[in-house]
Amino acid sequence: MNKRKICVVVTARPSYSRIKSALTAIQDHPNLELQLVIAGSALLDRYGNAVDFIEKDGFPIAAKVFMVLEGENPTTMAKTTGLGVMELTNVFYNLKPDAVITIADRFETIATSIAAAYQNIPLVHIQGGEVTGSIDEKVRHANTKLADLHLVCSEDARERVIKLGEIPEQVINTGCPSIDLAKEISEYPYLDFDPLQKYGGVGAALDWKNGYIVVMQHPVTTEYKESKKHIQETLKAVKALNYPAFWFWPNVDAGSDGTSNGIRAFRELEQPKNIHFFKNMEPTDFLKLLNSSEALVGNSSAGLRECAYLGLPVINIGNRQFRRSRAGNVTDVAYDQVEIEQAIKNAINTEKFECSTLYGNGDAGVKIAEILATVKLSYSKTICY
Amino acid sequence: MNKRKICVVVTARPSYSRIKSALTAIQDHPNLELQLVIAGSALLDRYGNAVDFIEKDGFPIAAKVFMVLEGENPTTMAKTTGLGVMELTNVFYNLKPDAVITIADRFETIATSIAAAYQNIPLVHIQGGEVTGSIDEKVRHANTKLADLHLVCSEDARERVIKLGEIPEQVINTGCPSIDLAKEISEYPYLDFDPLQKYGGVGAALDWKNGYIVVMQHPVTTEYKESKKHIQETLKAVKALNYPAFWFWPNVDAGSDGTSNGIRAFRELEQPKNIHFFKNMEPTDFLKLLNSSEALVGNSSAGLRECAYLGLPVINIGNRQFRRSRAGNVTDVAYDQVEIEQAIKNAINTEKFECSTLYGNGDAGVKIAEILATVKLSYSKTICY
Amino acid sequence: MNKRKICVVVTARPSYSRIKSALTAIQDHPNLELQLVIAGSALLDRYGNAVDFIEKDGFPIAAKVFMVLEGENPTTMAKTTGLGVMELTNVFYNLKPDAVITIADRFETIATSIAAAYQNIPLVHIQGGEVTGSIDEKVRHANTKLADLHLVCSEDARERVIKLGEIPEQVINTGCPSIDLAKEISEYPYLDFDPLQKYGGVGAALDWKNGYIVVMQHPVTTEYKESKKHIQETLKAVKALNYPAFWFWPNVDAGSDGTSNGIRAFRELEQPKNIHFFKNMEPTDFLKLLNSSEALVGNSSAGLRECAYLGLPVINIGNRQFRRSRAGNVTDVAYDQVEIEQAIKNAINTEKFECSTLYGNGDAGVKIAEILATVKLSYSKTICY
Amino acid sequence: MNKRKICVVVTARPSYSRIKSALTAIQDHPNLELQLVIAGSALLDRYGNAVDFIEKDGFPIAAKVFMVLEGENPTTMAKTTGLGVMELTNVFYNLKPDAVITIADRFETIATSIAAAYQNIPLVHIQGGEVTGSIDEKVRHANTKLADLHLVCSEDARERVIKLGEIPEQVINTGCPSIDLAKEISEYPYLDFDPLQKYGGVGAALDWKNGYIVVMQHPVTTEYKESKKHIQETLKAVKALNYPAFWFWPNVDAGSDGTSNGIRAFRELEQPKNIHFFKNMEPTDFLKLLNSSEALVGNSSAGLRECAYLGLPVINIGNRQFRRSRAGNVTDVAYDQVEIEQAIKNAINTEKFECSTLYGNGDAGVKIAEILATVKLSYSKTICY
Repeated sequence: MNKRKICVVVTARPSYSRIKSALTAIQDHPNLELQLVIAGSALLDRYGNAVDFIEKDGFPIAAKVFMVLEGENPTTMAKTTGLGVMELTNVFYNLKPDAVITIADRFETIATSIAAAYQNIPLVHIQGGEVTGSIDEKVRHANTKLADLHLVCSEDARERVIKLGEIPEQVINTGCPSIDLAKEISEYPYLDFDPLQKYGGVGAALDWKNGYIVVMQHPVTTEYKESKKHIQETLKAVKALNYPAFWFWPNVDAGSDGTSNGIRAFRELEQPKNIHFFKNMEPTDFLKLLNSSEALVGNSSAGLRECAYLGLPVINIGNRQFRRSRAGNVTDVAYDQVEIEQAIKNAINTEKFECSTLYGNGDAGVKIAEILATVKLSYSKTICY
Repeated sequence: MNKRKICVVVTARPSYSRIKSALTAIQDHPNLELQLVIAGSALLDRYGNAVDFIEKDGFPIAAKVFMVLEGENPTTMAKTTGLGVMELTNVFYNLKPDAVITIADRFETIATSIAAAYQNIPLVHIQGGEVTGSIDEKVRHANTKLADLHLVCSEDARERVIKLGEIPEQVINTGCPSIDLAKEISEYPYLDFDPLQKYGGVGAALDWKNGYIVVMQHPVTTEYKESKKHIQETLKAVKALNYPAFWFWPNVDAGSDGTSNGIRAFRELEQPKNIHFFKNMEPTDFLKLLNSSEALVGNSSAGLRECAYLGLPVINIGNRQFRRSRAGNVTDVAYDQVEIEQAIKNAINTEKFECSTLYGNGDAGVKIAEILATVKLSYSKTICY
Repeated sequence: MNKRKICVVVTARPSYSRIKSALTAIQDHPNLELQLVIAGSALLDRYGNAVDFIEKDGFPIAAKVFMVLEGENPTTMAKTTGLGVMELTNVFYNLKPDAVITIADRFETIATSIAAAYQNIPLVHIQGGEVTGSIDEKVRHANTKLADLHLVCSEDARERVIKLGEIPEQVINTGCPSIDLAKEISEYPYLDFDPLQKYGGVGAALDWKNGYIVVMQHPVTTEYKESKKHIQETLKAVKALNYPAFWFWPNVDAGSDGTSNGIRAFRELEQPKNIHFFKNMEPTDFLKLLNSSEALVGNSSAGLRECAYLGLPVINIGNRQFRRSRAGNVTDVAYDQVEIEQAIKNAINTEKFECSTLYGNGDAGVKIAEILATVKLSYSKTICY
Repeated sequence: MNKRKICVVVTARPSYSRIKSALTAIQDHPNLELQLVIAGSALLDRYGNAVDFIEKDGFPIAAKVFMVLEGENPTTMAKTTGLGVMELTNVFYNLKPDAVITIADRFETIATSIAAAYQNIPLVHIQGGEVTGSIDEKVRHANTKLADLHLVCSEDARERVIKLGEIPEQVINTGCPSIDLAKEISEYPYLDFDPLQKYGGVGAALDWKNGYIVVMQHPVTTEYKESKKHIQETLKAVKALNYPAFWFWPNVDAGSDGTSNGIRAFRELEQPKNIHFFKNMEPTDFLKLLNSSEALVGNSSAGLRECAYLGLPVINIGNRQFRRSRAGNVTDVAYDQVEIEQAIKNAINTEKFECSTLYGNGDAGVKIAEILATVKLSYSKTICY
């Protein structure tokens, strides 16, 4: 029997964490062949060069696609997406996959969807059905309407995708592959590497062994002109706390120049003594870092997903995760220095929360591979109502 | 007060008929300014050069966008769309419209949607919420999920868009602008021009004054390899009937080379004495031609929309209009010479049907302009459930 | 020892004839590996689907690149070229060739040149150094300035490339591979296939066994608005002659719609009884057809190249081959029915000419392969003066 | 009489200095209309946002074109160029200029050339005919072969363009517009602004009033893998000197990430006390800064052009300016810390040189405008030999 060729397109650093365990399971499955495409900011040094970690993890790469236009504004986001459609169309035309996987809701993921759907290739959407703010909200549901099979991360998401008129049998809750990694590292009681030594980075040489927090705040595309102001509130709050903080640079998104510039200017001017900056970290190392920390601050979806499983207190700032399902570990705050600072203080003084399986119980990757190997694949559908 | 700038993107011949009365109403509205963009096959001679009719109708054109890749297969459809995203992004960047209108569900309409939505420009989707087969089905609902305001053509469509999670106040049934034209010409009791003289075309010099039918059959993108076989059934049926027929060449779509080649080969070989071929016709002339004919044969959506209002018998072939709402004038048949031939015979011997207002009652254009002038425009939304 | 990977980009039907014997020789060479890329109009049915002949000839294809924008005007020519740069850059990035070959001077060949030169891949230009009119003249010499190694077809061309400041050792006269085919078929005394049976085509069912001519006339891009008028002169002349003629449709070029439309309208209106039309023919069959004919009429470069070797009388119309080297077999005429008709009459009554080796003596393919296998490859150079 | 529309495309910070006086003269000319297009890195914050200076100088901008792909490697350079062809084709199609000006030899300037030449728009090449290393060498001469009119900067360049087969009357030595600026500021005996206050920047707060040098070193595209190593030699030399230095970040080019990373790492590690870094400066301020400095170090072409007129000692490092004409003010050195350091020391102890008019005497802008207003414009040519 021929193996089914499953093409997965990874376009950014965070998408890799969200799919890694599924990649492993696809690669290991006797009836599946993995075709891994690395595209967009996952190839770029400025955004943490996710491709290096992927290669180090031993995944063979079928194609690399440079498609990011400089400018980091809504105009270049749109053009990057258009370019992505053209490039990925070529890639799929040559790889001839039996199914293509598009991941979640970043703006450029719709390029994967169009390139597959228009070429009559069955399209699998991972992590649909959730709710947030930002352009991601539109992109996610548009991906759903272009996709033929939906592998979602929660019951809530499953119900929403069905409400969107999708065929119920084609909507399956596998849980999120990111939780698989979280489960794996949740067994480590302490950090088994020195982040400063292993990842370098810039900024203060922290003494992190007695407790630290992690910060990761991305720009919100629909508010991109305010991104500099927003990040400053967080910067001031964290500096004022004077508690060790590992801070990660933002994704490539409209506004990330605002966010990046805000950080850069603050560093130059204020030289904060309690903040160290990283570009990127291997997904498992990042989770270990979280797991040993006192809290995650910012607006990363990891706060709602992986941290739910890890029981880590999360200070979620602003609208980026608006209405996404969350467990009890999340405290929502506004773009406001005082609110942020107080919430972090509370978190540091809080015990960890119970493990929540809201986004899965750690076997999503294996489930996804098994479904891909056995489900009937189709590229045609009609709305259910 | 500044006029609101409304940018409308017309990418194909049939889209023009579907929006023309709205263009006029926008242009005439004291608080609106029309920015008309002509793109895709609407610029191409091979597809009837819709741009010529548009200019003749006196609409000023703000930008022309060449974006169609040759090849007419799923791969070039996808790449055309990607190119369209890039080009239209530039156009909107320079025109700075207050709202962009994307029309219906052709594959390249999603390019308009992405270029607007990603640049935070309020997106208005016209003619969403309907149901059909083909890639159009996916594209239409994806457009809905990218759009902020929905001006639909029927109650059925309005309910479906709301079920898709859109904010009910943002979903308004205006009826279809194509019905405005139908209403206008429905008052002409007879054909006031000679189609052979006015439009030339190729093929038999028909004596059409004692009755004729009209044929318009497009390829179905998800069946594009069968398009040649499908068109042959219709060709054989129409030839066998030996009744005068005006036949229109298909749209640019994957498979149209199959359809076009099928027609071309049949002409060369069979030299049918009862068929005359046209590339294109002014929208109003086309409706007059329909209104004076005995039946429309093929799979054009005009059969379900304008012909419902005109009460014209329609032989609808195959899956292209699968599940789209239809009035009593439509007879559905398979890709089968015998079925097609019998259905046409029945239609020729049938009286006209009652006028149906399923798709509107003739004032859609004016309603659309008034809504665009007064509605609160936004580019951010969240699903309703 | 690793084989050198030689990537050849074929973008159009005529380019294939101009490189075919070299492809065979590269494929057969023990130290070379052929990477054949088929792009542009060579993939399109409307332009004779050269890819079918190439596959039939048994060449494996490393990548196919759809890049032709519809419109056939100067604007789409330019955009096709831009798209070609982007696409071919990807192709070379993935194929990692040791050298790239760009052929002659069609507008899109500069895309191959840029994609290779900018990526520091040694660029070999075939058939540089000649002189013509049209945009080809600019493109050819720009290709020369981007290329590192020049394999030219005549002494005249060799001297011109050196005058352009190229390093003399890097400029080698191999002769033209098209002459290799001409030599091969020059041994056939008569036509060994029936063109009507083998290639179909449209138009009159000619009785060609007692003599015929061949016509092939392309639009001239810098005169593209006049292309319809130009082709009409030739059409009227050939019809007036009332002598059997095989006529080939033109290339995809700005203006080919003018040329094609001119032919189409003339056919419909005049139904010439002595002309049969073909889209394409296998290169060797085309040469056999020429070799058995009385004359070639039009502006094809085959008239100056292959026909010089074959000694066939050629009526060369207009400016397309302006200043290109020619042997005694060529009669130049203006776009003028009377002149054209008289020149064809003279040619039919003329004996064949002596074989001229102006463009080579039939071993170009083998020479090219041997040079590619042994020359020192470089991607850096400086002008010699 | 209609004014001639002259479209100038500025794609990078340094190109602006090289054309500014001509822009002014075109704008002021009664028979010319300026259509200014800003594209590529001239729009990007990371590369000094030249567009801000251009707008501040009061030039109205006809179109902005985002076209730079992230990655800064040979692959993205090529794709940026392809994208540029597509975008600029649209721009010219809409602006309908009577002539287009492409400037010098940066990799993306060929996009301007193709977009104009293929659309039959007369193409004017400024600053052709010079000799250097790098991909610029190929691009410059390819631009020459695509252009119809050549306005060069030196006698040497004029002779070379004629040797390239261009029509002698179409090759005119106007001098370089950059010299016009140099002449203007050469009358300022001292610096009339504080660079630290006016431009911010990062790094040491220099005491520059008793003498300083300026450093500007770009990556060489054909050596892009070595760019990090190359810049380190210069960094070490300048640090060792312990003499105040103003250092400018490099252009966007393949390898500039190597160069930028090299600088960034050195700063972080070594925290040099005598170096202050700027992203950009208004062209006239930059020249004033040079004019009051002791020497320019690096590989900027300003060292050979403007500094010849200013008589400023220049330490020219490596191959980037290989074979470009130079006056007596230039000392060439290798990528070698010791050589560089010694050469700078010598320069600091040297008097200024005599003013050289090798690249013009300060009236280039006015001459260019006058030629553009009066010359016969054509888009067709044939090589002269």
